[in-house]
Amino acid sequence: MRPVPFSPGQRAELRRTVTEADLVNFAGVSGDYNPLHTDALYAQRTRFGQRIAHGLLLGSWVSAVLGTRLPGPGAILMSCSLRFLRPTRIGDTVTAWAEVAAVRTDRPVVTLRVGCTNHHGEVLAEGEAVCYWEPVEGA
Amino acid sequence: MRPVPFSPGQRAELRRTVTEADLVNFAGVSGDYNPLHTDALYAQRTRFGQRIAHGLLLGSWVSAVLGTRLPGPGAILMSCSLRFLRPTRIGDTVTAWAEVAAVRTDRPVVTLRVGCTNHHGEVLAEGEAVCYWEPVEGA
Repeated sequence: MRPVPFSPGQRAELRRTVTEADLVNFAGVSGDYNPLHTDALYAQRTRFGQRIAHGLLLGSWVSAVLGTRLPGPGAILMSCSLRFLRPTRIGDTVTAWAEVAAVRTDRPVVTLRVGCTNHHGEVLAEGEAVCYWEPVEGA
Repeated sequence: MRPVPFSPGQRAELRRTVTEADLVNFAGVSGDYNPLHTDALYAQRTRFGQRIAHGLLLGSWVSAVLGTRLPGPGAILMSCSLRFLRPTRIGDTVTAWAEVAAVRTDRPVVTLRVGCTNHHGEVLAEGEAVCYWEPVEGA
């Protein structure tokens, strides 16, 4: 087995400001037109008082960290779990992050803690991902 | 507490054929440009031999079932876990589904088994979601 170049504690992140376009585009890609995410009048009458981001939109940003930063290209997602702890609003600046929790020695498999935090440092989502690591040489 | 109008065994699904545009659009929304999903030449040299769908793209289709069908509008995603068991290729026809596993009696919370299956009946992904249920009356 090729050595897996990761070790516990290694961390990567990506930051972005949530826009109305993000919610609209995620609704289009997913088909999730739950009015909580796409209908301002409906959302006004919910406990949140405004549209909030789809949970799996935050999940998609975690996917970006895993697929482009850590482990990065070569990562194949085997599992992902997320708990959504707070609403994410348009205008929030969100940091999606991943941190290596464990690396198997018998197979090229990396377990990472993952999550998203807002600009107040509040945890929006957190969970775990497991990636297989199989990069293409010289690609 | 308002009665929660769901019971174990209830099921809903959405079906769609995976297109190149789905992978491109999900890469755009998420920022996950892992070449396994967006670079045909790279993907050719992987064990899959071609681009495969992002795991969280399947997750987003599960989100659509939860947000539009079961529980539907009024659902607020509290957690979601998915294991990815097989690759999903462009041209596959994927059924994303959710089935009520449990309904709490003390709080309006529904636990669902969720997953995606391809046109051969093979399981692509499976897991669990927990939704809070708080619809807006007359919205």
